[in-house]
Amino acid sequence: MVASPSHRPPRPPRPEPPALLYAHAARRARALAARLRGKRPLFICTIAQTDTARIPGLSAAGATPELRELTPAADAEALYYGSARCLHGVPANPLGPPGPAIITIAALRLARIPVLVVDAGTRVRPQAPAIRLGEVPGACLTGGQAVPDAAGLYQRGYLLGAQLAGCADYLVLGESVPGGTTTALAVLLALGLDAAGRVSSSMAANAHALKEATARQGLAHLDPAAVARDPLRAVAAVGDPMQAAVAGLALGACGRVPVLLAGGTQMAAVLALVHALRRAEGRPLDPRRVAIATTRWVLHDPTADLAGLVAQLGPYAVLGSGLSFAASRHAPLRRYEDFLVKEGVGAGGAAVAASLRVGASAERLRRTVERVYRALPRANGSP
Amino acid sequence: MVASPSHRPPRPPRPEPPALLYAHAARRARALAARLRGKRPLFICTIAQTDTARIPGLSAAGATPELRELTPAADAEALYYGSARCLHGVPANPLGPPGPAIITIAALRLARIPVLVVDAGTRVRPQAPAIRLGEVPGACLTGGQAVPDAAGLYQRGYLLGAQLAGCADYLVLGESVPGGTTTALAVLLALGLDAAGRVSSSMAANAHALKEATARQGLAHLDPAAVARDPLRAVAAVGDPMQAAVAGLALGACGRVPVLLAGGTQMAAVLALVHALRRAEGRPLDPRRVAIATTRWVLHDPTADLAGLVAQLGPYAVLGSGLSFAASRHAPLRRYEDFLVKEGVGAGGAAVAASLRVGASAERLRRTVERVYRALPRANGSP
Repeated sequence: MVASPSHRPPRPPRPEPPALLYAHAARRARALAARLRGKRPLFICTIAQTDTARIPGLSAAGATPELRELTPAADAEALYYGSARCLHGVPANPLGPPGPAIITIAALRLARIPVLVVDAGTRVRPQAPAIRLGEVPGACLTGGQAVPDAAGLYQRGYLLGAQLAGCADYLVLGESVPGGTTTALAVLLALGLDAAGRVSSSMAANAHALKEATARQGLAHLDPAAVARDPLRAVAAVGDPMQAAVAGLALGACGRVPVLLAGGTQMAAVLALVHALRRAEGRPLDPRRVAIATTRWVLHDPTADLAGLVAQLGPYAVLGSGLSFAASRHAPLRRYEDFLVKEGVGAGGAAVAASLRVGASAERLRRTVERVYRALPRANGSP
Repeated sequence: MVASPSHRPPRPPRPEPPALLYAHAARRARALAARLRGKRPLFICTIAQTDTARIPGLSAAGATPELRELTPAADAEALYYGSARCLHGVPANPLGPPGPAIITIAALRLARIPVLVVDAGTRVRPQAPAIRLGEVPGACLTGGQAVPDAAGLYQRGYLLGAQLAGCADYLVLGESVPGGTTTALAVLLALGLDAAGRVSSSMAANAHALKEATARQGLAHLDPAAVARDPLRAVAAVGDPMQAAVAGLALGACGRVPVLLAGGTQMAAVLALVHALRRAEGRPLDPRRVAIATTRWVLHDPTADLAGLVAQLGPYAVLGSGLSFAASRHAPLRRYEDFLVKEGVGAGGAAVAASLRVGASAERLRRTVERVYRALPRANGSP
């Protein structure tokens, strides 16, 4: 039989991105994924605010500086209600794209993963249930007294983590902290990592120089010997409340269940912290207990180096979600592929957990995120 | 062979109390116990304070009126730490016996049941992680405006309950609310139950007359037709914040997992509330989804009638723990058998859950409670 002239061979299907990526300690990452497949996760988003985020030019986690004040509360609300209460839709990037909360919401819904919110210290409280671990936001890290109650936050986080470990087969710990990559950089440097130029950003053009200058200002107040004895001093001086709380959650839980730190270089700082805390106690952390799970955009971020940070700590697994918006018909979502938004609200870890729980493909995840995006109220990210 | 004269036959073993009691809808209660056996529960203690508790003569939940202010916070702390932070040991009865938190602590430890604390509205905040659902304590019910935000507490509780249902095979919902049997009486009366003389008390001599006079003063402000349309009006007028929050938790969760309301007649008020809420919505609550689990002391309380209250609602199961201190060598614990302390902090429900989870006998529970009791700091219940 001869094909008619009008017949064209079908276009070869666009190669689908894999659901899971293995970016560091790949064999260990694959083994962890195999161990968690089908298991029941619990997702916990820890929110916090700092005065560090008020330094102009550091953060794009919010459409305007005024709206940035609402970002952690709005993200927490969006996780419960599907969109925020204190603003329309979800927190957005100044250039328009919706924030990463839509990914987290979609992934948790798709796989029916339960979510809890931890408030480690906020000015604007979410209109949603939150586990209060701290009462005050962080100060500006330049003063060298960013989180005076770091030890208390850690201890309460530890207690809570020990209980939450009884509620699931593993924990996925995300965050929403504007300005958090700067406090991450400062804590990584305080803990002795070669971190300059390696942390990610909520902006496409990563403000490395400003971040480093800001971090160095805070670090001038810090005695490295004191940090070696007590790594929480790094957070107390130049960190943010989320770091202490999530470090506590992770170490409180990881004796009983595996823990996925859901984020990019902010979670590298938390990993560095738990690694240092356990080393200071003389019982090194087993790298099979804690891993990082993040997005493709963080893993491919040309302005940052997550794997290079983790490699300085040890063979901790870094997993990624293959989720891509390249094939999306929604222009604001396609901007993710320009690295305009990369991570936040545990988006990558939630996507990884959804793929592990129900076998969600990257395409199915994308379609679910698109549905969440279309259902958002108009005037996205405005009050 | 002839027994030597010094031989005495061994004393017959003291008959051990059964681990579980079935006090109402016994067949349904047995079926529920069979369904939950071995399953993984999550225990949630909701704390709240009210000005109603400040009326002299109503509550013995605390060694003195001053210490009673600390009771909900101290109970929450004791669940996390084994004893309170804001006072020594656990809240105690004015006549000496340690409060029921020791039972809850023992049961949860024995069966490794995870615990979370919900704060529905307190003046004294616990030094422990708590999920904040409300910011203000309840007013005195005599004014008829006891919980202005009852609807908000209910809604946030519902949201949270829907998430927590994904964290366990069933939920056990306890409370610590001084003065709570008076707000329970008022809400039961507001919802149309024949409750006078039927609620329990933290005191051996139940102050029925004072409770009823107090409740009636609040009820004078209430329009029964409004309550029929919206049962939360009963809580808003004459209840306490815990009732609205736990009703939300229960209805948010019970579509997915069974819910045990862990308490005595205070939980009868919550049951009456969720029953009425669902009836007002035109979709009656399935009595297999929600049950009450309490202590032997509540079930045998000569001054109250839990089963008589539940019978007015429908065939809801009431389970009890067989835990008894009759055989204890600790005199303060034996005072429970005089009905000096009966229930609180979800003690009965936690004990039931421990028996269901690990098959703990009443005797093993007693021995575990005794160990918790002996480990308490001296000067029990003092600041």
